[in-house]
Amino acid sequence: MAEMRVEHDSLGEVQIPDGVWWGPQTERSRHNFTTGPLMPLALIRALIQVKSAAAEVNSQMDVITPTVGQAIQAACQQLLALDDQKLRAQFPLRVYQTGSGTQTNMNVNEVVAHLASAHSAQTILPNDHVNASQSSNDTFPTAMNMVAYQAMTATISTIAQLNTDLLQKETRYQRTVKLGRTHLQDATPLTFGQEISGWRATLVADISTLKSAQKRLLDLPLGGTAVGTGLNTTPDVTAKIISVLARELAIPFQNMTNKFHGLSAHTELTNAHSTLKTLATDLLKIANDIRFLASGPRGGYGELTIPANEPGSSIMPGKVNPTQAEALTMIATRVLGNDVTIGVANSQGNFEMNVYKPVMIATFLESADLLTGGIAQFDRLLVQGLQANEEVMRATVDGSLMTVTALSPHIGYEASAKIAQAALRDDTTLKAAALKSGLLTAAQFDQWTDPLKLTNIDQSSHQDPDF
Amino acid sequence: MAEMRVEHDSLGEVQIPDGVWWGPQTERSRHNFTTGPLMPLALIRALIQVKSAAAEVNSQMDVITPTVGQAIQAACQQLLALDDQKLRAQFPLRVYQTGSGTQTNMNVNEVVAHLASAHSAQTILPNDHVNASQSSNDTFPTAMNMVAYQAMTATISTIAQLNTDLLQKETRYQRTVKLGRTHLQDATPLTFGQEISGWRATLVADISTLKSAQKRLLDLPLGGTAVGTGLNTTPDVTAKIISVLARELAIPFQNMTNKFHGLSAHTELTNAHSTLKTLATDLLKIANDIRFLASGPRGGYGELTIPANEPGSSIMPGKVNPTQAEALTMIATRVLGNDVTIGVANSQGNFEMNVYKPVMIATFLESADLLTGGIAQFDRLLVQGLQANEEVMRATVDGSLMTVTALSPHIGYEASAKIAQAALRDDTTLKAAALKSGLLTAAQFDQWTDPLKLTNIDQSSHQDPDF
Amino acid sequence: MAEMRVEHDSLGEVQIPDGVWWGPQTERSRHNFTTGPLMPLALIRALIQVKSAAAEVNSQMDVITPTVGQAIQAACQQLLALDDQKLRAQFPLRVYQTGSGTQTNMNVNEVVAHLASAHSAQTILPNDHVNASQSSNDTFPTAMNMVAYQAMTATISTIAQLNTDLLQKETRYQRTVKLGRTHLQDATPLTFGQEISGWRATLVADISTLKSAQKRLLDLPLGGTAVGTGLNTTPDVTAKIISVLARELAIPFQNMTNKFHGLSAHTELTNAHSTLKTLATDLLKIANDIRFLASGPRGGYGELTIPANEPGSSIMPGKVNPTQAEALTMIATRVLGNDVTIGVANSQGNFEMNVYKPVMIATFLESADLLTGGIAQFDRLLVQGLQANEEVMRATVDGSLMTVTALSPHIGYEASAKIAQAALRDDTTLKAAALKSGLLTAAQFDQWTDPLKLTNIDQSSHQDPDF
Amino acid sequence: MAEMRVEHDSLGEVQIPDGVWWGPQTERSRHNFTTGPLMPLALIRALIQVKSAAAEVNSQMDVITPTVGQAIQAACQQLLALDDQKLRAQFPLRVYQTGSGTQTNMNVNEVVAHLASAHSAQTILPNDHVNASQSSNDTFPTAMNMVAYQAMTATISTIAQLNTDLLQKETRYQRTVKLGRTHLQDATPLTFGQEISGWRATLVADISTLKSAQKRLLDLPLGGTAVGTGLNTTPDVTAKIISVLARELAIPFQNMTNKFHGLSAHTELTNAHSTLKTLATDLLKIANDIRFLASGPRGGYGELTIPANEPGSSIMPGKVNPTQAEALTMIATRVLGNDVTIGVANSQGNFEMNVYKPVMIATFLESADLLTGGIAQFDRLLVQGLQANEEVMRATVDGSLMTVTALSPHIGYEASAKIAQAALRDDTTLKAAALKSGLLTAAQFDQWTDPLKLTNIDQSSHQDPDF
Repeated sequence: MAEMRVEHDSLGEVQIPDGVWWGPQTERSRHNFTTGPLMPLALIRALIQVKSAAAEVNSQMDVITPTVGQAIQAACQQLLALDDQKLRAQFPLRVYQTGSGTQTNMNVNEVVAHLASAHSAQTILPNDHVNASQSSNDTFPTAMNMVAYQAMTATISTIAQLNTDLLQKETRYQRTVKLGRTHLQDATPLTFGQEISGWRATLVADISTLKSAQKRLLDLPLGGTAVGTGLNTTPDVTAKIISVLARELAIPFQNMTNKFHGLSAHTELTNAHSTLKTLATDLLKIANDIRFLASGPRGGYGELTIPANEPGSSIMPGKVNPTQAEALTMIATRVLGNDVTIGVANSQGNFEMNVYKPVMIATFLESADLLTGGIAQFDRLLVQGLQANEEVMRATVDGSLMTVTALSPHIGYEASAKIAQAALRDDTTLKAAALKSGLLTAAQFDQWTDPLKLTNIDQSSHQDPDF
Repeated sequence: MAEMRVEHDSLGEVQIPDGVWWGPQTERSRHNFTTGPLMPLALIRALIQVKSAAAEVNSQMDVITPTVGQAIQAACQQLLALDDQKLRAQFPLRVYQTGSGTQTNMNVNEVVAHLASAHSAQTILPNDHVNASQSSNDTFPTAMNMVAYQAMTATISTIAQLNTDLLQKETRYQRTVKLGRTHLQDATPLTFGQEISGWRATLVADISTLKSAQKRLLDLPLGGTAVGTGLNTTPDVTAKIISVLARELAIPFQNMTNKFHGLSAHTELTNAHSTLKTLATDLLKIANDIRFLASGPRGGYGELTIPANEPGSSIMPGKVNPTQAEALTMIATRVLGNDVTIGVANSQGNFEMNVYKPVMIATFLESADLLTGGIAQFDRLLVQGLQANEEVMRATVDGSLMTVTALSPHIGYEASAKIAQAALRDDTTLKAAALKSGLLTAAQFDQWTDPLKLTNIDQSSHQDPDF
Repeated sequence: MAEMRVEHDSLGEVQIPDGVWWGPQTERSRHNFTTGPLMPLALIRALIQVKSAAAEVNSQMDVITPTVGQAIQAACQQLLALDDQKLRAQFPLRVYQTGSGTQTNMNVNEVVAHLASAHSAQTILPNDHVNASQSSNDTFPTAMNMVAYQAMTATISTIAQLNTDLLQKETRYQRTVKLGRTHLQDATPLTFGQEISGWRATLVADISTLKSAQKRLLDLPLGGTAVGTGLNTTPDVTAKIISVLARELAIPFQNMTNKFHGLSAHTELTNAHSTLKTLATDLLKIANDIRFLASGPRGGYGELTIPANEPGSSIMPGKVNPTQAEALTMIATRVLGNDVTIGVANSQGNFEMNVYKPVMIATFLESADLLTGGIAQFDRLLVQGLQANEEVMRATVDGSLMTVTALSPHIGYEASAKIAQAALRDDTTLKAAALKSGLLTAAQFDQWTDPLKLTNIDQSSHQDPDF
Repeated sequence: MAEMRVEHDSLGEVQIPDGVWWGPQTERSRHNFTTGPLMPLALIRALIQVKSAAAEVNSQMDVITPTVGQAIQAACQQLLALDDQKLRAQFPLRVYQTGSGTQTNMNVNEVVAHLASAHSAQTILPNDHVNASQSSNDTFPTAMNMVAYQAMTATISTIAQLNTDLLQKETRYQRTVKLGRTHLQDATPLTFGQEISGWRATLVADISTLKSAQKRLLDLPLGGTAVGTGLNTTPDVTAKIISVLARELAIPFQNMTNKFHGLSAHTELTNAHSTLKTLATDLLKIANDIRFLASGPRGGYGELTIPANEPGSSIMPGKVNPTQAEALTMIATRVLGNDVTIGVANSQGNFEMNVYKPVMIATFLESADLLTGGIAQFDRLLVQGLQANEEVMRATVDGSLMTVTALSPHIGYEASAKIAQAALRDDTTLKAAALKSGLLTAAQFDQWTDPLKLTNIDQSSHQDPDF
């Protein structure tokens, strides 16, 4: 058994293991809440950054003494320098705790106070000093927006890298004609480069919505303190703390105008997650396209070859599976579900506070991090090694009936339809059926149905690298 | 039995009731798809607008003759002038039809061709003339974005009206102090005006996200035709048609750069609905706040009085229920579910097309229209008549223990906590317990805990009408 | 303008159009709630049945006089005999009204009282007579369970019909070998009959969960009256009314034991919808399988031919689309979303009542009815006409490499893998590569890889018509 | 740097750290899939149990030699005896891997083979020996059902304990009258015991649906091997393995009839999670009721006192928050989202397999485990210490107007309504207003409105401990 020291809080005595840096409120929480994952370290670090910035400003503005301020800042720097494992050792609380995140805010206050006291001749108090000018109710949502913003930066940058790699494939296969498919049925041709451009344009649209949503997270509700009024702090102090955070993290954080909103509703975070969700749905579509086009090797579409990263099956030798697409689409289903969690959580605020904050931010970070990691892997281990089977693509176009569409402007819709139906019925090529119809010559057929011409490749503006 | 006329399409003969304007494809569809609601008329009207604009440009660009073009435009004007009931009579198809909306596009083509033929010496054909330079695959998603844009305009304008009415209440109750509540527990005071400002700021945030999302809908995928390549049309024709649409509807529609994206993914629509969903979750919170604050009359919070619009119960006379809040929150649950429908639908595109278009747009419009209608009613029949029970608010503040927070900067956190606990235990006022503690004087207590001062009403910037 | 008559309720005077049968509460509601769809007629009819049963028992038990009871019963019979259009004319209220459904219960009370008064020498009152022994708070959830039960009966019966038709195909293609596919990659063979049996077994599993869930809806909360205590009625009266309902509808409805539960939580309905949701997800999978197997005609899997119910495209003649699969999968997305609506709505009850009842039941019925209609169409217009392209199936199996699995027990996993890889690399058949390896003879190859034998068709028990 | 050993698989050489027990496929996967959480150990253990049972039967049936079989069984026992940390060290793979779970099945095969080889004179092979008669495609879904079943047992047992504790409170407060509330408005009284009985009955309904759904998980798809046909095994072997599993785990597992279904659709798991979701929505309602009834201490309903487990706020001393309710309701939002993840995942199977298995089971276990843990905490730290403030309850009933309902049978609905309105308007008691109306005597009032009588406590059957 660990040796124990005794501390107390407003409810009485608490036994705390010797050697840990936390105090009584952390100790109570870790026994009262024993289910589910631990609070993400990213959020702990953001709270420490808030504490450091607050200490800097508080001592500047005479809320605390310079000595106390410096001790707190030193403690924060010490904590921020720790690696994940060492930091985690001092932050044992779980996501499913009080819905305001108060216990994690107090965990930070207690640990910082403990360390700061060692840097100082005087005892630094968790509430009176470390938490000065703040409340859990405003620091926690402030940290939420900070980490959500940062997580989205990583996601956006990963999509951008994927798009760079897609663009390379797009350029390479710019004039590689292949069959289009709508309703899963053969349609008029396009080039594989055009098809890729569609995926890329979809991701460009996602990047754009992600960036808009991310920008809204810059507004921080710090300064609202307990209920939004800013009791026990001043607008000046708040504005300065936010400036320090912006300076330290090199992110243009701003002072949210209405703090009542910032504590009781997470419109910005909910909206931001929805852009991750929309991204997830688009990725599901793109990953499905790729794995279907790579289906086979002999009983599928067979238009793409993807890298063989691992043996595909324990019983079927010779099989290579689209495993990265599978991981990514599983992630997409998770993000779709997470969006419901966050939406419902946002709807359940009451009066001056929403007490679903920890589940909102943990769920948000899960989505962002899974997407970032999943996209990066998908890019590196699947997209970068993707190859078109150009002969298969060409053969499929040549055997298809759908270039009949190109005849429609020349011989009309109904005559065209009849030719296609005849070719299908007689199992011949479209050309044979067209000539048999007597409505056009072989030369006309070849001219009108040149597949590359049918793709309009030389007219279309899809090549824009940024759309 | 209705008299029948016989028409034919590429599959053969079709019997069509005499007197209707539609043709064989519509007739087939209405027998093959008999489940669920009819396609929204707003979408039909948008498609007719596309047909009219296409005819104008097609004749200008010699795709069809001027005579044919004028006949089509006249037919479109005739249709757009019909009231809902008369228009509906010609558009009998359902939402749950082919996933490209082709059958509704053909319904429009057939009806317009039928009417245009009556305006013209020559027979106007649904495909060759009315649908010239277009495909279902690009007109339908074009119409989707058009009507979604318009529906959001109405929603935004209704929220703005609600906010105007909230601002009026906010001004009126600017200095009316009331108890704050966090974790549903008594907290430090704020004014009712401040509380309302929080609701209003939340809705301002929603308006902002709605507007960003709405703007993305301006990009129209028209010109992609069948698979995105623009086969059978030209970029020039497309650009001109979109300009005509922009001119006619006075909405700055633009030519989407990448049409492959526009046919196969609905990132913009999915994102736009997610902003409606976020709005819905915020409304659920606000409506809950209002109905809880109005709970009672004697066994609830009792801080608000809301209009008695109808008798509340068939068995309990004298009861008045927050029925508008109930309708609005039911709508919110619907929109939350609809967001999943649209997200999943967006994820299910394959290759060059997403075939969940009708369910996406019908679901989108349901959400937008329910919100628009529900907010308007909630505003008119509940918010506008809302009254604060100022005496109840004041009495609750006076009886509460939470102004103890204001003592914390003066006598410290722990001493403050003990005073509050003593008052609770002894069922006395906070003031009595504070004086009994001997740590402060009556004058100090009154000065430090002046409720209005605790709200920081004169410092906070929440009053900004726009944030 | 319609002529008006004046009636009054506890809030004062109300002007009601002459000729309608409803009274003041209905009139107020239809002006106060003007958004969204009307309350489903199925629910109105269930409420009328409750009124009739209550009148029968109330007069038996001396709660009302026999004369009044008979007049009410006669009025109910008159209403139940109306067709949809005529019934609708008297029930103009919307889903998005008060969350208890009180206004619709009053609409029924008022209309029945109006008609009953015409059958009687005395004035029949909506509350005192028609609603006797009841409250909106118990009649509405009673009607919810009644109609949900009935809607599920229709859904179950439609799945059963689909399964009968699938079984016919299964029998027909019992020994038709085709390629299996896992991860979208070629896998070991199975028969098409076996594949269909998998679909059918999935639907059998759904029928089973649907039936379990449906059975729980038999418990009716009638008798709880306002808050669950049964004030103003007696357990005897309640038990008898439920017996009458069971007798009249020939459904074994039961008296729910705990009425507090029945008014404040809709566990049974939420659970029942979740079984519809699970069914929807299974249908999405099955419909996807069918449309992918029918993809082509030349650039897809091409294993199935589905009926050409309508021309597939306005621009691409010759194309036939899996439109019924598209409608069904769109329905599936709707049901997935609806499940969130109902789940969230169920979570939002407060104290003695859940006030999301109308949205719950309307959403439930939408899902059940869409599924019933969508499955029936899918069955009739797609499944019944489905044909296997047996030559394509056979050729794909013969060309595939995956029968290599059958070599594994004979020559080991790694040797087998090498043979498959060689065949793939050299673009030869598996047999050629196997012989080249020198590890087995041609006779051994043929014996070990007989495709039909690989399917285990003669051992497997999948043929059970009911599983 | 760790020393490395070289192994090879069908793709070539792989460097594996010395000392670990896994082989090349595990090594490849842990480098290729680096995002998200690790595969739950419960699932690893279930797979080991399958391997052990398969080895027992395989050696019995001469598929492998007894020596090999015993070595494998010994290895499995060795692994099952490890604690979490030691087991985890050998199972480093993540949830987001291949969608069949093949890599985790191979991880198990490799580790077991490694250990078994040490127990044996001969080299035991992962595929040929450990995986004999199996495929990832059937072992993984078999393990899914096994662990889901076990997780639900824990959840059900925790709800049952909560219900036992609720029943104790129910008995204690059986005759404690309190105000009922519908639409958040004052309604007729009930006893607190009755109110609790409603919560308990809701949970009883949940236990019942959970048990039905759990039972369906007993059917195991083992024996389907790669595509459902059972290639490379026999029905006899499968049946025996399942019997061994049933014997070892003392759970009546059964042989699923149709294996095609079992590999390609997870109807049973999806349905089972939906019952967890319904439970979550009911818990959200119950937890909300409790925290609202405990709201205050002076500005809320104040009817309940809940245990003070930790200081509630870092800035507001004296405040005690319903933190366990907050954790539980956050869990509920998570489970609501998880249900969408699982539903969507189930819809995305293709052909012979669903490749969303790992995300489905990991998400399922997260929900079940969070609920089990969250309910247990909620019970222990909140419900067990819950106390009614009986004086507050009584005072609220006495001050309310809603006992007016009890007058309705005596003096009619409208007269009753007028009395209540008068009392509200004049701010008097109902009794005063009633007497002033002249319609009844004081004695009649007291007799008719005896609150306890109004609750029907002596008639109602809600007390049934099991319903």
